[in-house]
Amino acid sequence: MKQKHLIDLAKLSKDELMEIIELANKIMAEPDKYSEVCKGKIMATLFYEPSTRTQMSFKTAMLRLGGSVIGFDNPQNSSVSKGESLKDTITVVGGYTDIIAIRHPLEGTAKAASMYSAAPVINAGDGGHLHPTQTLTDIVTLYNEKGTLDNMCIGLCGDLKNGRTVHSLIKTMTNFKNNKFVLISTPELTIPQYIKDILNSSDCEYVFVPSLKEAIPMLDVLYMTRIQRERFASEAEYEKQKGVFVLDKEKLVSAKKDLKILHPLPRVDEIDEEVDYDPRAKYFVQTVYGMYARMALIMTMLKDVDRTPMPRQFDTSHVSCQNPNCITHREKYLPKLFRHVGGDMLICKYCDGRTLI
Amino acid sequence: MKQKHLIDLAKLSKDELMEIIELANKIMAEPDKYSEVCKGKIMATLFYEPSTRTQMSFKTAMLRLGGSVIGFDNPQNSSVSKGESLKDTITVVGGYTDIIAIRHPLEGTAKAASMYSAAPVINAGDGGHLHPTQTLTDIVTLYNEKGTLDNMCIGLCGDLKNGRTVHSLIKTMTNFKNNKFVLISTPELTIPQYIKDILNSSDCEYVFVPSLKEAIPMLDVLYMTRIQRERFASEAEYEKQKGVFVLDKEKLVSAKKDLKILHPLPRVDEIDEEVDYDPRAKYFVQTVYGMYARMALIMTMLKDVDRTPMPRQFDTSHVSCQNPNCITHREKYLPKLFRHVGGDMLICKYCDGRTLI
Amino acid sequence: MKQKHLIDLAKLSKDELMEIIELANKIMAEPDKYSEVCKGKIMATLFYEPSTRTQMSFKTAMLRLGGSVIGFDNPQNSSVSKGESLKDTITVVGGYTDIIAIRHPLEGTAKAASMYSAAPVINAGDGGHLHPTQTLTDIVTLYNEKGTLDNMCIGLCGDLKNGRTVHSLIKTMTNFKNNKFVLISTPELTIPQYIKDILNSSDCEYVFVPSLKEAIPMLDVLYMTRIQRERFASEAEYEKQKGVFVLDKEKLVSAKKDLKILHPLPRVDEIDEEVDYDPRAKYFVQTVYGMYARMALIMTMLKDVDRTPMPRQFDTSHVSCQNPNCITHREKYLPKLFRHVGGDMLICKYCDGRTLI
Repeated sequence: MKQKHLIDLAKLSKDELMEIIELANKIMAEPDKYSEVCKGKIMATLFYEPSTRTQMSFKTAMLRLGGSVIGFDNPQNSSVSKGESLKDTITVVGGYTDIIAIRHPLEGTAKAASMYSAAPVINAGDGGHLHPTQTLTDIVTLYNEKGTLDNMCIGLCGDLKNGRTVHSLIKTMTNFKNNKFVLISTPELTIPQYIKDILNSSDCEYVFVPSLKEAIPMLDVLYMTRIQRERFASEAEYEKQKGVFVLDKEKLVSAKKDLKILHPLPRVDEIDEEVDYDPRAKYFVQTVYGMYARMALIMTMLKDVDRTPMPRQFDTSHVSCQNPNCITHREKYLPKLFRHVGGDMLICKYCDGRTLI
Repeated sequence: MKQKHLIDLAKLSKDELMEIIELANKIMAEPDKYSEVCKGKIMATLFYEPSTRTQMSFKTAMLRLGGSVIGFDNPQNSSVSKGESLKDTITVVGGYTDIIAIRHPLEGTAKAASMYSAAPVINAGDGGHLHPTQTLTDIVTLYNEKGTLDNMCIGLCGDLKNGRTVHSLIKTMTNFKNNKFVLISTPELTIPQYIKDILNSSDCEYVFVPSLKEAIPMLDVLYMTRIQRERFASEAEYEKQKGVFVLDKEKLVSAKKDLKILHPLPRVDEIDEEVDYDPRAKYFVQTVYGMYARMALIMTMLKDVDRTPMPRQFDTSHVSCQNPNCITHREKYLPKLFRHVGGDMLICKYCDGRTLI
Repeated sequence: MKQKHLIDLAKLSKDELMEIIELANKIMAEPDKYSEVCKGKIMATLFYEPSTRTQMSFKTAMLRLGGSVIGFDNPQNSSVSKGESLKDTITVVGGYTDIIAIRHPLEGTAKAASMYSAAPVINAGDGGHLHPTQTLTDIVTLYNEKGTLDNMCIGLCGDLKNGRTVHSLIKTMTNFKNNKFVLISTPELTIPQYIKDILNSSDCEYVFVPSLKEAIPMLDVLYMTRIQRERFASEAEYEKQKGVFVLDKEKLVSAKKDLKILHPLPRVDEIDEEVDYDPRAKYFVQTVYGMYARMALIMTMLKDVDRTPMPRQFDTSHVSCQNPNCITHREKYLPKLFRHVGGDMLICKYCDGRTLI
């Protein structure tokens, strides 16, 4: 990996990605060979919002490499999250530890953290923005379960508008050859424009299908996600619609024999419990792949790491980011950093939000 | 141990129990010899209700065997305990880790967890139902402090109706020879019928004694437990009665020289602080025995473990468990599993509650 | 160290202090040599009030010595902190572990804990009373950054009345040669009488200076602390005064080139963020020195430790401590222990509070 930090999986080259996947597979094959490679190393898991599952996956990964873990999971009880700036917390924790996994409800926080940390930073989820280790998990799963990352017909079902894991998976899979995407959702919850742009500029096909039942026969992969009740216009609308996007045994009858069903978990009721006993259900083994994916990532990032913090950066513009959930609104000292993408449009380097000048 | 999981101590044969006790003693004698036997292994402590003491005992035990620990202790802040089914959590955590210790306020949860876990499950307390590692702690203490598990006069004082540790200790000690039980409580708080049945079908004697003062001279062992204020008819009744069941220096005057005083802790005021300085007080050293007992248990359970999860089970009946605190009422997907014990009586395989058809 | 526990840094001789500092420096020079010296040892971090930063420093220190850590950080969710006496908790945890770091909002708690613990106890902060590992951090920083602990002009700025780290640093630095103290605060927030007494009985000079701007040119060391808004007579008074005690780039213009700026952290706004980029700012590297200081302390305390708990102590007086924040008011079983300092004045051995007979 050329980059010290992992904020956005899209910043990795295809080769770098494949290297991590291959390493994950090597560890899976001979875990004992890797059980001490991070001996003496400490990871901090700084979870500014609870996500017990993700935190346990990171901890397990570090422990299985022989390292150890400190951190917090509990914003209410943590004195760190009260009063103190993110910058100060990260500067100190980056001095104590060898690698940091950070989770935060605001978008762009992982990027902000990486600017002040001597230790490499992993984005363990920054609000609705990015969650790169989930996508890494997904592609390690696909690679192992399908034997390839090319030539697949991938269905994505549920809330495709707000699901950051869906966006990230599409972006990543467009880098591979000849994948086709089947987008299964209500019209209101379909993928946002910027994902359409990415699909259009790739050589991947995509189709919109309004129900899971119609879509299922053509799929090699089905990526299920939650649809939150609150996303619908009304409770009545939710009750009417939800069955259309629930996976059950009946819908599976017309599916391919080698379909692989994934889900980032936790699920609520979008996959019927009966489906768990179908051999095509891969969402539980997916979490085990996720552990190996994180092991490979941590190992890669700790190799020959340069602990010099980034040089200080300065405002590239005088405007503020127009995304209200951007970390820059809470942490005022952060320099205003934008990429100019032509015309009067700026892209915030923290949260990737668009701002008009 | 023939069983993969430890849900109920009564499922162990006397030989299996003795093996664990002997192993605990070996570890105690030469702890350094065992300080790496679980190297590379991970325990999950899933505490759905806080019990800092028990959790620290499990963690210490695992760490002293060279293993490591992940988990949560904080149901409010844990995203795992919200929304997600027990089955999903356990399936995932069982995939990450090598052994799970679970604590939950609902009865039968440990049994339910064991049905979905690749990793062996230890019941660290399921509501008012069972707490097998406390009983293991108690008998390791007795065996070391008395040199035997036979021929003892064992007093049990306090709330004998609701105290799960009392029930479990009686059940276990009836397997040994010639033990006599002295049951010291108000009539309202005496042992339940099913414990009387166990005593009657064993060859152990038992007597009811209404005050600690009367009982104390005959005892080899005194097992003290808390009486919760709420268990009495009124505050006035509590104030009137409580002295009768409080152990103090004065009552100890008539006790045997080699009496051993145990308590599962935490205590409130049922043992006067002055008693702590009496050499017969063993309730603190009991917690140290508990640590070694848990070390022996973990070691035993991790030996040659088969990580295949249980095959799927199906309803054995159409009725629901009539115990309102049974886990089956919260986790609706759980198959209804009962043992038929004759007539129209079913016993729930999760919580051991009785259900009439 | 002659003492088993570290409650008050003032109980260490100058030689003992220097030994710990030298060991911290040795570890810093060759950390790998020390990465397994505490292998198999367990530290408990018992944090009865949240202090994530301090807890992470202790944990990191123990892990970097090859040891492991259990504990709690969350008084609300911890069953230990509810209902159970400090004595019982400490007796049990002292039996499980090899060393305890305790933090508590009440004064004298660490001393109280040390009376019942088989394991050595480190005071990680007891209310407004003492925080010895912060002072150890401060002097390890000074020794490394200045090359000496003598002949310095040390400015202390902020709330000098209530800041326990300020008091402790002054007390410690008066043991070294020819240090001069510059006390920078409002008259209301200056050092208390007992610190003046210590300064007067030492051969150290000290002066009061009402503004940071005036003081700064003469300083070799500037120790900044927070001034809490609530300490001022009114919000208006706070707004008027606060700038006088805020360190910014402008004030640094007249400072010495080799000034070293320290702060116990977390800071709020008493140091402008711009100062972070000045090479004289040492408050972040100070936290790294703190980690090594704690490593040295833990190593020293675990060497040849005698695990016999203290013999029981009895009341030395019948009066109660007059400090309302003293632990003796919550934990009623604690013996009343006082030092008689002449006349009708007693000093509480827990909280060092003064009590008139």
